Formats: sequence, C-alpha cells, structure tokens
Amino acid sequence: MDPTRAFVKNVKRVVVKVGTAVVTRDDGRLAVGRLGAIFEQLEKLNSRGFDIILVTSGAVGAGRQRLKYRKMINSSFADLQKPQVELDGKACAAVGQNGLMALYDTLFSQLDVTSSQLLVTDNDFKNADFRVQLCQTVDSLLDLRSIPIFNENDAISTRRAPYEDSSGIFWDNDSLAALLATELKADLLVLLSDVDGLYSGPPSDPRSKLIHTYIKQKHQKAISFGDKSRMGRGGMDAKVKAASKAAYSGTPVVIASGYAANNIIKVLNGERVGTLFHKDAHMWIPVTEIGPHEMAGSAREASRRLQALTTAERKKILVDVAAALEANEQFIMLENDADVEAAREAGYDEALIRALAESVRKLAEMEEPIGHVLKRTELAEGLVLEKKTCPLGVLLIVFESRPDALVQIASLAIRSGNGLLLKGGKEAKRSNAILHKVITSALPESVGTKLIGLLTSREEIPELLKLDDVIDLVIPRGSNKLVSQIKSSTKIPVLGHSDGICHVYVDKAANLEMAKKIVLDAKTDYPAACNAMETLLVHKDLSTSGGLQELVKELEQEGVTLFAGPRVNSVVNFSKANTFHHEYNSKACTIEIVNDVDEAIDHIHSYGSSHTECIVTDDHNVAEHFLSRVDSAAVFHNASTRFCDGARFGLGAEVGISTSKIHARGPVGVEGLLTTRWVLRGKGQVVEGDKGVVYTHKDLLNGVHLPNGVDLTNGV
Amino acid sequence: MDPTRAFVKNVKRVVVKVGTAVVTRDDGRLAVGRLGAIFEQLEKLNSRGFDIILVTSGAVGAGRQRLKYRKMINSSFADLQKPQVELDGKACAAVGQNGLMALYDTLFSQLDVTSSQLLVTDNDFKNADFRVQLCQTVDSLLDLRSIPIFNENDAISTRRAPYEDSSGIFWDNDSLAALLATELKADLLVLLSDVDGLYSGPPSDPRSKLIHTYIKQKHQKAISFGDKSRMGRGGMDAKVKAASKAAYSGTPVVIASGYAANNIIKVLNGERVGTLFHKDAHMWIPVTEIGPHEMAGSAREASRRLQALTTAERKKILVDVAAALEANEQFIMLENDADVEAAREAGYDEALIRALAESVRKLAEMEEPIGHVLKRTELAEGLVLEKKTCPLGVLLIVFESRPDALVQIASLAIRSGNGLLLKGGKEAKRSNAILHKVITSALPESVGTKLIGLLTSREEIPELLKLDDVIDLVIPRGSNKLVSQIKSSTKIPVLGHSDGICHVYVDKAANLEMAKKIVLDAKTDYPAACNAMETLLVHKDLSTSGGLQELVKELEQEGVTLFAGPRVNSVVNFSKANTFHHEYNSKACTIEIVNDVDEAIDHIHSYGSSHTECIVTDDHNVAEHFLSRVDSAAVFHNASTRFCDGARFGLGAEVGISTSKIHARGPVGVEGLLTTRWVLRGKGQVVEGDKGVVYTHKDLLNGVHLPNGVDLTNGV
Repeated sequence: MDPTRAFVKNVKRVVVKVGTAVVTRDDGRLAVGRLGAIFEQLEKLNSRGFDIILVTSGAVGAGRQRLKYRKMINSSFADLQKPQVELDGKACAAVGQNGLMALYDTLFSQLDVTSSQLLVTDNDFKNADFRVQLCQTVDSLLDLRSIPIFNENDAISTRRAPYEDSSGIFWDNDSLAALLATELKADLLVLLSDVDGLYSGPPSDPRSKLIHTYIKQKHQKAISFGDKSRMGRGGMDAKVKAASKAAYSGTPVVIASGYAANNIIKVLNGERVGTLFHKDAHMWIPVTEIGPHEMAGSAREASRRLQALTTAERKKILVDVAAALEANEQFIMLENDADVEAAREAGYDEALIRALAESVRKLAEMEEPIGHVLKRTELAEGLVLEKKTCPLGVLLIVFESRPDALVQIASLAIRSGNGLLLKGGKEAKRSNAILHKVITSALPESVGTKLIGLLTSREEIPELLKLDDVIDLVIPRGSNKLVSQIKSSTKIPVLGHSDGICHVYVDKAANLEMAKKIVLDAKTDYPAACNAMETLLVHKDLSTSGGLQELVKELEQEGVTLFAGPRVNSVVNFSKANTFHHEYNSKACTIEIVNDVDEAIDHIHSYGSSHTECIVTDDHNVAEHFLSRVDSAAVFHNASTRFCDGARFGLGAEVGISTSKIHARGPVGVEGLLTTRWVLRGKGQVVEGDKGVVYTHKDLLNGVHLPNGVDLTNGV
Repeated sequence: MDPTRAFVKNVKRVVVKVGTAVVTRDDGRLAVGRLGAIFEQLEKLNSRGFDIILVTSGAVGAGRQRLKYRKMINSSFADLQKPQVELDGKACAAVGQNGLMALYDTLFSQLDVTSSQLLVTDNDFKNADFRVQLCQTVDSLLDLRSIPIFNENDAISTRRAPYEDSSGIFWDNDSLAALLATELKADLLVLLSDVDGLYSGPPSDPRSKLIHTYIKQKHQKAISFGDKSRMGRGGMDAKVKAASKAAYSGTPVVIASGYAANNIIKVLNGERVGTLFHKDAHMWIPVTEIGPHEMAGSAREASRRLQALTTAERKKILVDVAAALEANEQFIMLENDADVEAAREAGYDEALIRALAESVRKLAEMEEPIGHVLKRTELAEGLVLEKKTCPLGVLLIVFESRPDALVQIASLAIRSGNGLLLKGGKEAKRSNAILHKVITSALPESVGTKLIGLLTSREEIPELLKLDDVIDLVIPRGSNKLVSQIKSSTKIPVLGHSDGICHVYVDKAANLEMAKKIVLDAKTDYPAACNAMETLLVHKDLSTSGGLQELVKELEQEGVTLFAGPRVNSVVNFSKANTFHHEYNSKACTIEIVNDVDEAIDHIHSYGSSHTECIVTDDHNVAEHFLSRVDSAAVFHNASTRFCDGARFGLGAEVGISTSKIHARGPVGVEGLLTTRWVLRGKGQVVEGDKGVVYTHKDLLNGVHLPNGVDLTNGV
C-alpha cells in the first residue's frame, strides 16, 4: 500500500462519480461495456460491505442520441432535407434519464444489486430540511445494501446557465459529487474521468507527468490543464475545483480513469492510481514523498557533481564511507537486531561490519574506472577522437537479499561515479535505513546526499520503472520472478539473469576422478546458486564402461536426488525428469546420455539458459570444439561451473551475473556500470560534404587501453 | 493486413460465438462489462453492413446463480441448514435463458440494435424443412439489420447426455456455431474464448506459443491442449474439433480471446489475432508463412554454423556477395526501376551497385572482429580465464531507408557472424526482395540461406518483437516515431537514437570566423541528419560585441530560419521558439544567449537529447571543462557536429547512432553487433567453498587487446 494512500484502510462510505466521457461513447451511445465493468466493481465493493453512492452524468447526451434517432425514423424524406433544429436540452435530459436508469437497473439486477434513483437540483439544497432528510434516505438505502444513484434533475432544473454558472451550491455533476461527499459524510470521493488523472501539462504531451498527490500550494499555478475533457461539461479545471472543495471539507478525493479496468478497486486497495486530493497532503508530502522523478533527477545531478571530482576526491569518499560504517557499528547492529528479530535470520556482528568496511576500502584502492581511453584515432590532421569510459548516470537497484548488498552496491556506484536509487526488501527495512543514512552522511557537500536515494515503498517501483528519461539501468538482484517482472514492465535496460540452467558434459575421454570432483563441486558447493549444475550430460560410452554408474554413486552418496532423461532410464532407473529445462536450486539434478560432444552442444542450446557450461575431457580437440561452439556467457574446460563469479573472476565487487548478451555478459563488475563518450578535439574542421578534411583514420593507441591520465601518444 | 488473413476482405456474414467462460464471471454472475464491450463491437460491425449472427452459451450458469440466490432468499434458517440439493440443469437453463435474453436485449437496445432469439435443439436439425426455413428466417432478420441470437434450447432438449454426447448433429454450442456457420453460409466464424487462441502447449506454460494458423497435418498430434476452459463445456479440444469441421466445410474460423478489447473488429480488419482455421491453410502456409519463431530459430542455427567457419571462409562469403551483386546488376536495376516508378524516387545505376559491391569487399578486408581476446587472467595456477568477442546471435533490423541499407546491414551481419531478420519499407519491396535473393544465393551450403530472413509483412513485426528468447537485438533505422514505437513494444534490447537535438556553444573566447564556419556546417551540411545542430547557444558578451549579429547574418544568408529564446529576443527580434526541446530536421534552428559555459552545459542537460554537442572556443580550460562535464554521446571542441558518424569516426560500416548509454553509444560499427564470452581452461580445479584454489588474479595481457589467434602469453 502506498503510504500516501494509507487512509483508505478506514474508508467505508464511497461516492463514485462517472462523467459523460465515461458513460458515453464517441458516437453518443451509452458505453455499455465500460459501464458494465464499472458496475461489476461497485457490486464487488458493495458485497464487501462498502457503502457505495453513485453520481452519474450522461443523461442529456444519451437522450440527444435517442431523440435524433427517433426523429430520423419518424421523418419523411422531405423532413430530412430541411435544416435540422438543435434538440432541446431539457427534453434530451428527460428522455436520456429514463434510458440511462433502465440500463443501470438492468445491469445492477444482473449482479443482484438493487439500485435506486435520486434526482436533485441546486435549489433543493437551499432547504436545510431537505439536507437532513436526504441523509436519512441515503442511510436507509445503504442499510438495505442498495446503491443510490444521483443525477442533477436537468429536465426540471431552473438554473439560468446550467452548463456554465458556477456560483450555485453545485454547478455540475463534479461539484454535485463533491457536495454529496461532504453532506453524506463519505470517506472518499472517486471522480472517474477519461484520463489517468491530473497531469502537469496537457495529457497528450509526452513530457507531462501524472501528479499523484495534488498540493494546492505547489500545483495550483504550475499546471496547465489543457483542453476540456472530450465531451461533457466536466473539464479537468472543474474536477480540480470540485476535488479541492471536497478534500478541504474533509473527504479525500481521487481523480482516476474510468477506462482502466478495476481502477476503483485499486484505489480502495491503496494503490497509487490517479491523482489524490487530501487536506493534509501539503504536510506529509515533503517528508514521505519526494516524487520518484525528483528523486531520480537529484541523483543524476549529484552524479554529475561526483564525476567532476578528482580521482583522489572520489577515493576519499569511499575511505570516509568505510570509516563511517565502523564508527556507527553499534547503531547498525541495533537496527539490524530489530530486523533480525522480525525475520529470524542471521544478523550482523562487528566482524561483518568491519569486513564490509574493509571491502569498501579495497574498492577505494582499485584503479580509477572513469576516463579510460579505449580508443584514440586521428580522423584527420589536427582532429583527434577519443573513446573514454564514463559513468552511466543513474542506477536503480532492486534487491531482495541481505543488507550487505546495499553497502556493496552503494560503494560500487560511488566508485563508478553513478547516482543510485535503492529499494531493499522489507525484512531488512531498518538495517537498510541506517546503512543508507551512514553512507550518505559520508558524502561531501560538494556532491550532496541525494546521490543515493532509498525508496521505502514497493508502490514506488512501477513509477520509477517509467522514468526511462532519467534512469539508465535497472539491476534487480533477487529471484528469477523479480527479474522477469521488472523486465516486462519497463523500457529502461535491465541487467540481470533469468535462469541458471548450467550443464556439465563428461566426455568419453574424461579423467573420471576429475569428472567426479567437478560434478560434485558444481552441484553441491552451493546448490541454490545460479552457477550450480542442473543437468549432467554423459557420453554414451560411459554407460557401458561403468563411468556413468560411478558418477551416479558419487552424487547419491552426497544426497543429491537424480532425475533421469529417457536414455539414462534404460540404464539406471530413477524418477523421470519432467523437462530438461528446469532449475532445481537444490541438491537435485537431471542426468542424460548423449552420443557425442555435438549432441551435448545441441542439448545445451535446446534446453540451457546460456549461463555456464563445462566440459570434462582430456581430449584437447574435443575441448576446444566445445569451447568455441557453445553459445553461453561462460564456457569452461575441466573446471567447476562454480568459478563463474565476479570475485573469483577477479572483477572485484560484483554487480550481478548477466545472461543477457547486451552491454555485459556473465559476471559483471564495475565495467557494467560504465558507458563511453566520444570526445573530439579539433581546430575548426568542418565536414562540408566530406570535402572539408582528408581522413587519415590513424589508430594512435594500437589496441592498448589507457588508464585515466596516461598518454602514450608520443611514444607510439 | 496479414497475408494469411487476406480472405477477410470478402467477409460479409459472420457467426460470433461467446462461450460460458466469456459470458459468465468467476462468481457465476453475468460478465456485464465484457458482454457490453463485445456487443459494442457487434453494433459497429452491424452498422458497417456486416451480417452478424450471435451464438451464446451461459444460460445454465446464469440460471443456476439466479436460482441459488432466490432459493436462499426464500429459505428459512432451518432450510439453509439442510443439505443443499443440486439444482436441476433444465430448470437453470429455463431461468437463465430468460435473464440472459433480457440483458442482451437491453444492451442491444441502448445501441439501437434490434436483437432476436432463436432456440434450437439437435433434433430440429434432423428435419430438412426446418433447415430451409431457418435460413429464410435468418435472412429476413439480417435484412432488417437485426442480430439473431442462437442458443441450444437446453430446457427442452432431450439428448440423454447433453454435456458429453458428441455423436449428434451438434453437441455443444461450439459445434452448434460451426453447424450454423455452414448452414447459413457464413463467411467467417469467430469463437470467443477465455484464452488468446490455440497454444502449442498449456497456455500457462511460458514456452507455449500461440498458433496463428492451425495446420491439421502439423498440429493435430503435436499440441497438448491442457485443461478444459475455466468453466462451461467447451474446452479447447471441443473448439478445435468444431473449428476444423466448419473450416473444412468452407467457413474459415478464428478462435480468439473474448476478454481482449476489440478482438472481433481486429479479426475482421485482418489483424493476426487468435488462431485461424482455413481449409487451404496447409497449402499456403509453407510458402507465405514460416512462423516468425521458426524464421528466427533458423537464423540462429545458421549463425552458429557461420561462427564455426574460419576467418578466411567468412571473408570469402563477403567476396562472393560482392561478386553476386555485380553479376546480377541488371536484375537488381530492373526490380529497383519498378519500385522507383511507384515511389518516384531516385534509383540504382551500375555505378551505385559497383560502389556497394566495393564497400562489401572493403568489409571483407577488415580485421576479423570475432574472437578478440579482451582480457586474459590467471585465476589460479593452471586456471586461465579469457574474455573474447563473439557474435550477438540474431539481429532484427527494421529499416525505412533506401535498399542500400539492406546490403550494408547484411554484410555487417555476415562479417560479425550474426543471423539477421530484415524488414524493409514497402516502397522498396521489389528491390529488397532481389537484393535478399542475390545475397543469400552467395551463402555457402555449410551456412544455409536462412541466415538472413526477409520479412514481407508489417504484421509480422509485433510477433517478432515478442521473441526475446531468440532475437538478441533490434535495430530500427528510420524515424524517431519508429524507434520509439519499437522500444515501447518489446523486451528485446533496442539500439537506436530517439532525438538528435545537438547544440553548438559559441564561447566568448571563440574565434568568430571559426565559429561561423562550424555553425554553418553543423546546420546546413545536411539539415535532416540527426547530428545537425538544432540549437545555437551564444555567450552573452557576443550579443554586445556584435558577434551574435554576425552569426545570425551568416545563417540567414544561407536561408536558415531562426527561432529565438527569450534572451535573444531582447537583442534581435525573431519568431519566438515554442520550446528548446525541438528537432527541426530542416534549415531552421533555435538560438539563445547564455551567461557562461556552465549555463550552456545546464541548458544542454535540460533540453538536449544527449547526442552531439560542440564548444567553439580558444580557451583551453573552458573547452576541457565543457568536454568533461557534458553528458552526451559525443562532445566536440572546435569541430562540426556533423563529424559524429560511423564512417567519419573510422568505424567502417555504420549500424546506426545510439543515444542509449547501454551496450553502445554514439556511432556504432561492427562492435555493436558483438558480445563477449568468458572462456575458462583448467586442470580439474573446483571451488570447494573457496578453499579449492589459491587465487592469483594475474593480468596476462596488461591492457593489450589481442586479435584472434595472436598469443602474447609467453611474451608477457
């Protein structure tokens, strides 16, 4: 639940208003599909015990459509050729109201809901007795679980300028809904519109952002509402005016789309849907909600300041972070204890915190990753191009693992000059908060603490995933499910692995003792790791020589459960594997026989996840064949798959292991957090249809990559 | 329009069947929202002149729900405590049919559609007179634009096992729909279900693929249908049986989801929605449709064979491609002429084809890009890790530009060992087809022609964009709109630029003559290019020194239209720029005054698109400050933005320019089509809780990158 929407827990009575743009289709007919979907939600909420009050527009439009149609049918051809007179609005309202209510009643009847009709005018509300009686009537209806449906009695209303005059007690159905919400003491008013809520600019402009919480002081002047809604009188201006009125009278209001399925239910579940108006919003917003967009923007600005520092200055920050961790170890342990108590997990101790601080210091000692010259080319005389490493910008890391991940990631971000947004698991909420505080307190003023933002609510993630203009890379560290969910809900590039279905192929020319050692290590060193073996492929000759049986015995002795492919089962009888495409993540694996190395390669390509594969053989040619053909992030000869790891590969701290082929593949270290910039220095050269210069394209580096500051130009 | 769906152009009479899972909600109530949405589509089609016949299920379920509710209301507390007797199916049907039709009539009435009810039994169809009369009745109703609604008359049907017996003339509402489609000579039958169509396996399994066209010979045995539909009698088995029957009797059938909005209309627009059954499908499928998934899979397999070739073999292919282009130049020009005539564009001549062939030969001469060793580390004694370049796998290129792009891209793919799927614009359809044929004819048998697939229908793109398991990178070459559309509709990484809002900042310390030359070149050398200048920023001192006026004069003399920011307008009076975030793509630009280099940088960060920015200044410190701070793909000092280009950068053929920071940034050459693999060679080492080996992490390359085959290990 979004923290700004926590109040919905206490909501019982809800006023829902459907405007003309929701009720009516483009062609003027009633939008029966949309109405049905909305009524299904109201029925569900009604049966869950909510008091539902519906305010509807749309009668005039529906009536006009109906009357036009009848008039056409009853017309002679000659009639139709005469100029058509505009139909009377009140007549339309009278006809439309009837049809509207007939449809509403039928729909609600199908859902076993009794609805009731209340037509009111501005005038009625001038009478105090009426107001009292109205409350009683509505209370009675709600006690009977009936849904009262309100509409302005347009057919008999005597307001002079019914569509424009906003001086009355109410002046359209938005303000009627606001008035009713207050009068009937509703806990929430939902105004359904044809857009997702209130935007910072015209909804059609891609740079307009949806405003989640309206703050009068902040938004009243800053917003340009754009045109009125597609039809009906209720433009966004009118909605904001009505919503503000109700909110300041004590009934929170959400403006949301009536087109999106289940929006009313989402609002009542506290999801961050639409725009919220709440009288206290100005008080809690600055504390609990810096908009995700602002947070990301601040991180980007801070990262630019961080990049501008010298190598020594950036190094010092990490040394300070390490010192801060040690200085605050008591606080960290205290907060961690509170988490641990709740989660019943192993916690922090002084040794772990010191080890963490030590790893941060090691990172500080690492060679500067920013500013490496990867390429230096003379394009033409006096025109020299460089390709240099530089930070990506802003990273969003969503991690489910223990909070030492936070320290590791934050230090990597600082080392690589990136801004960072972090979202940890709720089981480590307090530990994450204190670690974040300790680390950001060590950041110099010249960079600012906003370099690293800590997100506290799960609800903010979908928002952040939309910010492909400010966030450059998302790194989910956690389950496959998490990775795949994030991948399918963002345009921002995602660095992460999907599955880890790793294979070991034991060739006929394998040293069997070596094979046993590798297979055992690959499966049992840490069975839940993504680089653990999931499938063992064995050359067919080993099934007759007894080698297969020995491997099986070895695994079984270590308590590994074996599942067999069809060919193995004719030799040794195990439970049948359901599929070769399975990650056990436990002391279990699939085992199958293959004819030769090519069949092993085909098997890996068909069922693997392109993570890590190993061949065990003493035949050099077979090994090289395997190494050159297998299309996975890591391919090993005579070594355990468990070596596939950033630390073991010597990359320093590890960002994660990527099974994607783009940007970074396999274990990813600091390099994965960098991109490159092309820097061109000239003396006024121009292209001029490629006649401006004589291209030389001279490689000034000869393949040597230079660390920051080193210049070999003269020596080459 | 999908070529397999072209027959819809001749469809006039459509039978639409809605099953229980579509009509009813989980709780047994009628799904009024879904029904409304479906009926709105039927109304639209009816008013467009289609003959619509509806077959509905759901009466029994709806009746059961209604009767249960009534029974509960009428029960005493004691009654409710007794064991509840199952309600009689026929009674439920009788009650339900009534409610169903009342709702349908109300919904259709709102849409000004007259509906009619036809209840039939299996028995009725045994009578030939009945069949004739039924046709006449339906014809009369359709003439009156009424929508006939069919249902089995369950309440009076005497079939013994009405829900299981499939021996009759029809045995459920799916087979009733199929029977009616044939009897009433419908041109199309649409069976709406709760899943998207027929899948190759259980729809819940993520590896199941939607089958777009059902081929009896191919799919009948291969498909496992999984469980029956959520409710109702009509499982997928029954639907396939009914659909096959109707299709072979001459009425094409589409099984599609009734949950997705507008699916019926999409089917009738010829979109590739759901699963098509057509009696001729087995004949045209092999020619016009190798499924996109198969196409991508074949390209991947061929690319693996291509990788396995030696450098010399791969080089030879390109030489052969060049020769084939020249040998076929007459054919190419002929086909190109036909396109050109249609498109009235400039066409090919011998010189252009020879230049193309020459560029392919140049690419053949290029240094082998595959197998470069980027890193070589000794992890432990006898355990050596390499990071080597390798092809990405399969690329999908969507290009709107002229067909020379096809040759360029195909050669790049061959050079980099990648498989390729190509989709060109329809204005160059014939040229693309002949070029594709010529190029693939030069591929050796050991690789296969399927390395490069040419897509002919726009409809296939959405399908391909779903194949994130087979396609590794999408490169859209065309308008910003194309790039952005593709980005938002795929999980596959996309390489492309969004906007090209490039800036030139003329500093106070600029050489004014140089500034004029650069500004002019940056704007006018090729105004439509993405590396053309869109905004000119000028230091404030130049507005008083007259420098600004000189720059303005220079641009105006060349016919550039200037739009002014607020500060410029107080000095020189132009049309006001609406926004600084605008790509003119023409001889026009925005011009604004800034206080100093930092304000210029801020302006670029606020309004730029991180493409290419240039500073013109003679002040070395200011230039370096700009070069190090501006966060764009390319930053230039005293050189035209137009240099930002793969060829000018010396990268050989250009894949495109990327404004993304991930994988490749700025002009992208062959490198952007490569990824890396980690290759580890050991002697049986295992991890064993990191006690298995002593890590040395020795860099064996010292930053030198080795081309394929070169080994410096001994020398280091």
